[in-house]
Amino acid sequence: MSMNNLGVVIRNIERADRAAVAKLSRFGVATVHEAMGRVGLMKTTMRPIYAGAHACGTAVTVLAHPGDNWMLHVAAEQLQEGDVAVVACTTDNTDGMFGDLLATSFRARGAKGLVIDAGVRDVKDLTAMQFPVFSRAISAKGTVKSTLGSVNIQVVCAGAIVNPGDVIVADDDGVVVVPRAIAQQVADAAEARENNETAKRARLAAGELGLDLYNMRGPLATAGLKYID
Amino acid sequence: MSMNNLGVVIRNIERADRAAVAKLSRFGVATVHEAMGRVGLMKTTMRPIYAGAHACGTAVTVLAHPGDNWMLHVAAEQLQEGDVAVVACTTDNTDGMFGDLLATSFRARGAKGLVIDAGVRDVKDLTAMQFPVFSRAISAKGTVKSTLGSVNIQVVCAGAIVNPGDVIVADDDGVVVVPRAIAQQVADAAEARENNETAKRARLAAGELGLDLYNMRGPLATAGLKYID
Amino acid sequence: MSMNNLGVVIRNIERADRAAVAKLSRFGVATVHEAMGRVGLMKTTMRPIYAGAHACGTAVTVLAHPGDNWMLHVAAEQLQEGDVAVVACTTDNTDGMFGDLLATSFRARGAKGLVIDAGVRDVKDLTAMQFPVFSRAISAKGTVKSTLGSVNIQVVCAGAIVNPGDVIVADDDGVVVVPRAIAQQVADAAEARENNETAKRARLAAGELGLDLYNMRGPLATAGLKYID
Amino acid sequence: MSMNNLGVVIRNIERADRAAVAKLSRFGVATVHEAMGRVGLMKTTMRPIYAGAHACGTAVTVLAHPGDNWMLHVAAEQLQEGDVAVVACTTDNTDGMFGDLLATSFRARGAKGLVIDAGVRDVKDLTAMQFPVFSRAISAKGTVKSTLGSVNIQVVCAGAIVNPGDVIVADDDGVVVVPRAIAQQVADAAEARENNETAKRARLAAGELGLDLYNMRGPLATAGLKYID
Amino acid sequence: MSMNNLGVVIRNIERADRAAVAKLSRFGVATVHEAMGRVGLMKTTMRPIYAGAHACGTAVTVLAHPGDNWMLHVAAEQLQEGDVAVVACTTDNTDGMFGDLLATSFRARGAKGLVIDAGVRDVKDLTAMQFPVFSRAISAKGTVKSTLGSVNIQVVCAGAIVNPGDVIVADDDGVVVVPRAIAQQVADAAEARENNETAKRARLAAGELGLDLYNMRGPLATAGLKYID
Amino acid sequence: MSMNNLGVVIRNIERADRAAVAKLSRFGVATVHEAMGRVGLMKTTMRPIYAGAHACGTAVTVLAHPGDNWMLHVAAEQLQEGDVAVVACTTDNTDGMFGDLLATSFRARGAKGLVIDAGVRDVKDLTAMQFPVFSRAISAKGTVKSTLGSVNIQVVCAGAIVNPGDVIVADDDGVVVVPRAIAQQVADAAEARENNETAKRARLAAGELGLDLYNMRGPLATAGLKYID
Repeated sequence: MSMNNLGVVIRNIERADRAAVAKLSRFGVATVHEAMGRVGLMKTTMRPIYAGAHACGTAVTVLAHPGDNWMLHVAAEQLQEGDVAVVACTTDNTDGMFGDLLATSFRARGAKGLVIDAGVRDVKDLTAMQFPVFSRAISAKGTVKSTLGSVNIQVVCAGAIVNPGDVIVADDDGVVVVPRAIAQQVADAAEARENNETAKRARLAAGELGLDLYNMRGPLATAGLKYID
Repeated sequence: MSMNNLGVVIRNIERADRAAVAKLSRFGVATVHEAMGRVGLMKTTMRPIYAGAHACGTAVTVLAHPGDNWMLHVAAEQLQEGDVAVVACTTDNTDGMFGDLLATSFRARGAKGLVIDAGVRDVKDLTAMQFPVFSRAISAKGTVKSTLGSVNIQVVCAGAIVNPGDVIVADDDGVVVVPRAIAQQVADAAEARENNETAKRARLAAGELGLDLYNMRGPLATAGLKYID
Repeated sequence: MSMNNLGVVIRNIERADRAAVAKLSRFGVATVHEAMGRVGLMKTTMRPIYAGAHACGTAVTVLAHPGDNWMLHVAAEQLQEGDVAVVACTTDNTDGMFGDLLATSFRARGAKGLVIDAGVRDVKDLTAMQFPVFSRAISAKGTVKSTLGSVNIQVVCAGAIVNPGDVIVADDDGVVVVPRAIAQQVADAAEARENNETAKRARLAAGELGLDLYNMRGPLATAGLKYID
Repeated sequence: MSMNNLGVVIRNIERADRAAVAKLSRFGVATVHEAMGRVGLMKTTMRPIYAGAHACGTAVTVLAHPGDNWMLHVAAEQLQEGDVAVVACTTDNTDGMFGDLLATSFRARGAKGLVIDAGVRDVKDLTAMQFPVFSRAISAKGTVKSTLGSVNIQVVCAGAIVNPGDVIVADDDGVVVVPRAIAQQVADAAEARENNETAKRARLAAGELGLDLYNMRGPLATAGLKYID
Repeated sequence: MSMNNLGVVIRNIERADRAAVAKLSRFGVATVHEAMGRVGLMKTTMRPIYAGAHACGTAVTVLAHPGDNWMLHVAAEQLQEGDVAVVACTTDNTDGMFGDLLATSFRARGAKGLVIDAGVRDVKDLTAMQFPVFSRAISAKGTVKSTLGSVNIQVVCAGAIVNPGDVIVADDDGVVVVPRAIAQQVADAAEARENNETAKRARLAAGELGLDLYNMRGPLATAGLKYID
Repeated sequence: MSMNNLGVVIRNIERADRAAVAKLSRFGVATVHEAMGRVGLMKTTMRPIYAGAHACGTAVTVLAHPGDNWMLHVAAEQLQEGDVAVVACTTDNTDGMFGDLLATSFRARGAKGLVIDAGVRDVKDLTAMQFPVFSRAISAKGTVKSTLGSVNIQVVCAGAIVNPGDVIVADDDGVVVVPRAIAQQVADAAEARENNETAKRARLAAGELGLDLYNMRGPLATAGLKYID
């Protein structure tokens, strides 16, 4: 057994079911995160480069070295229609590893977006292309191409474990990772949750209180809440 | 005397005068902050969730536990027309304590906005609703409902003391707290300041220097400033 | 020799060649940074106050004291058509040293924008004016006018050395400093780089891989990259 | 009513009862914080400048301007035997506002230590003097003396409200503020808590589990905890 | 398949081989990290609470909720001789989840130390006990016991994946995770590396340059390094 | 003129006068910083790896790439008796670029210490060697040796400009850079300042107030300070 899997590219990965991905793409990150039981969320440092960015697809993972985007070029070849590239870095780094040329290439390969725990640049062009990118930073800083990382190994990206083929859902609220094996199950739960919320929204809009809607008055009293006039 | 007031809801609070609040709503945060003598500003970590967000109203305060939004539901019942909910947290936290359902409820109660030293989610929906929110973070992370905090006690929110009934003014420049007792006085001072600035703006636009407009040349020379050709 | 040059204003500075500045203004920060050999970039903490902000001009430098914007008024007099004011601070500070009145004055003097390693305010007005500002923070916090700094001395702004008369290029990707003496050379290199990228973009859009376009397969194999099916 | 109290020194403040302060000085910050109901703690950015630093005394408060330590000299005159100086700043700042000369002066006045939401310097000398200081930063950066703040007004220091005369307890675990009016009550509660902990410590050392000692098994089962072999 | 494993305690975990753990305990974190191929390191935010702290043992993992240490009490029962408790949190949190009482209990159970991506308190007592703790923060802030997490599930702690039974090595340089399956292999590689370093240290101490010792002059020349007199 | 000087080693640098360096070594960083007019200080993120670390010597500068310590090996050859290595990085990075082997080599070359705006490791060994290191971080993370930087060019390290041959003074209070040309002048000013402080310390220890010692009462009254009983 090798001690690590640096310097490898796994070519054949199993991707989440297309129908499940399509269904997940209908829901927001907050809904999916709740539907999954409040796990799988990346850190709040991950932000879209433009308001309204949205991406949903299957992960092709990349582990890169700080200041080095060589592996993103290697990853381009592994991207298929419907994938989202997910880039983790061996240490905290904000360098601009990705710009409009790579976006052009990724899109030509069928990629639906990029999630990167590092920096990106050419954000004006990326916005014009409406290529959704979620990153830790924006930086014009260029990178070298000299140290091997890996493609399609398990990575930790912004605090979340990502396996190749997992579903990535990303929008203004952040980025969530849905493990491949439970994609359909989570999509169904998200749908149920959303249906449930529609009814609640109407009642709340009509002035009903969450205290009553969620039956909180009893538990609050039990916990000892005191009202003082 | 009790050692703290955790687990309480103060129902009857005295709100700042409506006319003073209305007058304050005409001015920006920078103007109000200057008019008040440069005090009362929250930290710069508090940012609007969309450009152009603006809120002005009387504070209903909330002290919440990290990762727990139970007290926001309790606070909804205390909100009246013209209020702004102000949420402090017992420790630094970025979890998404507030989303579109609570916003729907708060708006139905008459709330003018939310200021929260924690995270919020559903920002796309909140933006579509044009419900102004100023927060420390955006996070899809859901919260539990299990630990009591308080409503309408004195809190420290993002470094500023907020008492229930104080006036909150929030815009792209940040969030300022105007103590209830001096709301009218600050509104008047803000008006005077703004009138004064209009005249200055015209002179500066015409090319007059602040050095002359504000009579700074003498004090600069006294302080020892040297010009070198 | 004096030990430092605090409290001085250098009136006659040599500015970069106007034609070189004009040519540099056609390129983005990432392109200029690459063209210069990947140096001269400010830290990623420097962000535009509105999306799409762009500034290019010759630096008038300011060294200010935290919480004190006196020197910005002094600097206004030194600004000429085509300048960009660059404000460094003797210590990390986010106070709102600049707002719409100073912007009105700076613009009347011919300034093309502001780069400040501190805070600014009145961002709604500045956005309406389309006055490009790149800053570390947005803050309504007002400042005093009591301690001398300097104008047109060498400063370190957000990690980059800026000499008066250097060219500043700033856009959504950040801020880069081009030394006066190499402005034309960098502009030419940026142009060559951009021409080169246009051709590459077309090939990448057509599905060609960077691995082939940049001849990376050999070096990757030499470095030991392994493909696993 | 004035809009703020900048530029004032309140000379006569009511200090917490000496006996209560003496009793509080016997307990650690964690114990006092728990005894008070888990409120009053400063942020974790406040750290002792040397391991083992401990201070307990009555607060003389200072509000200072960033980069300006003038008010610390003013505060020296207000210090009495048993006081702890508490310095807040109008904005985040790390400058070295305090060093061995001020420490010599403060000690000569009877001060028991310093809590400062800014920077300090001469830490080698301060350590040799065993003058306990709790600060946000260590910085050699010198400060000016040009802008008025205030002494003995209510301040927010590192997120906690401090009124002059309140009791400050500070050790390796942080800094807690005990309001003057409840100092004796909190001291008594701290004593009770500490006595209670001694017995528990012995049982835990003997191998008894907290699950049993605190009767947690029932509530855990109710909450739904599942054990899997 | 359940969507997550919150609210579970896995009782029977497979721990790394004792002999491998014992061998790993002889080496520093930097050596182990290198021996493993430069993977498995936690973020640099994890620091020992006292200089010289060292821990090596098998992981019992905990996933806790922010501000809630209930699961640490649950974990105590699962600790065996030679374990190190590893606590991850569902969101960034610095609250003091662990103190001298829990340390007393953990030690009584045979634990060799604690690694926690949150805060701890009673550091003076923990230091006196010489109970090694590596944490993100020190905080007196107390925690509640109300929300379920899990024990002995896979967690991400400070950016590193930890499975129950993995080997944790922690010292002044940080914390590294050695997967159970390769513990012996990494221990052997660490030994080889350390032996190798001893010889190198002697040669470097005698004045030989790394440039020669590591044969770097050729590669540097090939890369284009220029020496200028 | 070349656009940048990456990939070069300047072999012959002019070092500050030895006698001036020796004299500067007698004073603390705070004193030197004040003597120089409050300029030249690195950011407060630079901390000694052990309490009491002190270094004073002439700078050999290094510009390194994130995650790559190749240039530190190149720099070793340029070190002479009395030098302090100063390492800047092209982007923020905390990787452990320096450990006990390089320290052994640097010491054998005569180096008096290291200042590095990145991470270091083997801090236990470095402490045992009493090799003074001032860094941004401690990290066991190993680095590659693949990308050229430069040695003995002008760099910005932690916000301060450092030219090869400048004097570096570093202690518990931070790191200050004294330009080569004014080293003697600053040393003399530091001495004068220290002599002056000795007398002041005695008077303050005797209870005299800084208000009187520094004649502050008049300026404070002029500024409008009000005393309230």
